[in-house]
Amino acid sequence: MVSDESPGGADRDQVGLLEGMATTRAIRRFRPDPIPDADLATILWHASRAPSGSNRQSFRFLVLRDGERAGQARSLLGEAFRAEWARKQGEDGYLTGSGADPGSRKGRMAATMQQFVDGFEDIPVVVLATNVRERAPHVTDGASVYPACQNLLLAARALGYGGVITMWHELVAAPLRACLGIPDEVMLAATIALGRPQGHHGPVRRRPLAELVYEDAWEQPAPWAVDPDGTRFTGAAPDRLRR
Amino acid sequence: MVSDESPGGADRDQVGLLEGMATTRAIRRFRPDPIPDADLATILWHASRAPSGSNRQSFRFLVLRDGERAGQARSLLGEAFRAEWARKQGEDGYLTGSGADPGSRKGRMAATMQQFVDGFEDIPVVVLATNVRERAPHVTDGASVYPACQNLLLAARALGYGGVITMWHELVAAPLRACLGIPDEVMLAATIALGRPQGHHGPVRRRPLAELVYEDAWEQPAPWAVDPDGTRFTGAAPDRLRR
Repeated sequence: MVSDESPGGADRDQVGLLEGMATTRAIRRFRPDPIPDADLATILWHASRAPSGSNRQSFRFLVLRDGERAGQARSLLGEAFRAEWARKQGEDGYLTGSGADPGSRKGRMAATMQQFVDGFEDIPVVVLATNVRERAPHVTDGASVYPACQNLLLAARALGYGGVITMWHELVAAPLRACLGIPDEVMLAATIALGRPQGHHGPVRRRPLAELVYEDAWEQPAPWAVDPDGTRFTGAAPDRLRR
Repeated sequence: MVSDESPGGADRDQVGLLEGMATTRAIRRFRPDPIPDADLATILWHASRAPSGSNRQSFRFLVLRDGERAGQARSLLGEAFRAEWARKQGEDGYLTGSGADPGSRKGRMAATMQQFVDGFEDIPVVVLATNVRERAPHVTDGASVYPACQNLLLAARALGYGGVITMWHELVAAPLRACLGIPDEVMLAATIALGRPQGHHGPVRRRPLAELVYEDAWEQPAPWAVDPDGTRFTGAAPDRLRR
């Protein structure tokens, strides 16, 4: 059976599937507007449509808003993020050269990161994406949770929100687990910040497709792997930003 | 800047973003039609729009079609998949009870799996999704490749194709690496089969959203996490299929 609509979201489904993927940027600056419950449910419902290993649906989304433990968890995360950004800022050269120029690409990224970590506790919604393991940790475990995280970000985009995935919760994994009662066998897969964007979604920059696609064997070129007209490029962020 | 179109795909972008996520099923039965190079490029281009750790774009897609080494790799995979399915078929009770009834849900799944593994070498396109590591393997490495895999499946859906992610390449990881020249530091993240579907996309079944979403702490209910009208449910596949 082919469905012509998506339950609960069809009336607002104005962004095309391809367009949505091409223009969902990482959003780190948010307006204070809350996300209504119904929108959050729509976002998480679409997240949960993603595939997972044997369709076990081992992903669990823990939403942190204004509850008591959510507040404690957000404080833990906020402090860790500020410490990590302070460290990274020095290490990755955001304090010197073009990083110190507020008008440069790197300088703007630094300002965005500072705003993100400084205001972390006030971000409208934080979702902790987790995966309930049934075996010892394995490097492909993420196949059962990161597709859902991507759907989550795309669904947020469809409803006019935006977000970003970060792994910096790993710096406070133990106290975070204790605070929220998350068992050890549950993988902390991602922290996702969500809200109404300051700024805009739009075309993302990536490497030329030919650098990312091989055919027949490792590093064998795929001559047909060409970028469409209008594609904007970037090198890998850390290298390019250092220039 | 807000873009109104997706380079290279806008004219065919007829499926809505939310609808696409809600109706992208795992497709394991394929028509013999090849995927034209331009469509494959569009699919992989959208895959590569996904986020990755620090936007490093460490994902690499190795396309296996009719090349010499692709043929060898597909044979390795096909043999492994057939052996694994034969094993799983017995272990997961596909040969007894409802699994032995061709008209049951489980029986239909068994027939689909048999067709998938029997015809693996003839599936139009197989993509090996990989991730180039810069550190020791870590359980969150998949955050840099599985979002792209999900985009890949959604982009295929947008163009009228379908596919499925499997991890069964792990049974032949060593010979597969040798055959294709894939270095040890590259993670074999997923094998994705792609082609024009026999059968159709349509609404996927998942658990009730309330089982997948918590608020404020682990296993604390989120009363607002309700499924939209028209949602169809399934329990976790392995348990439910056993009934």
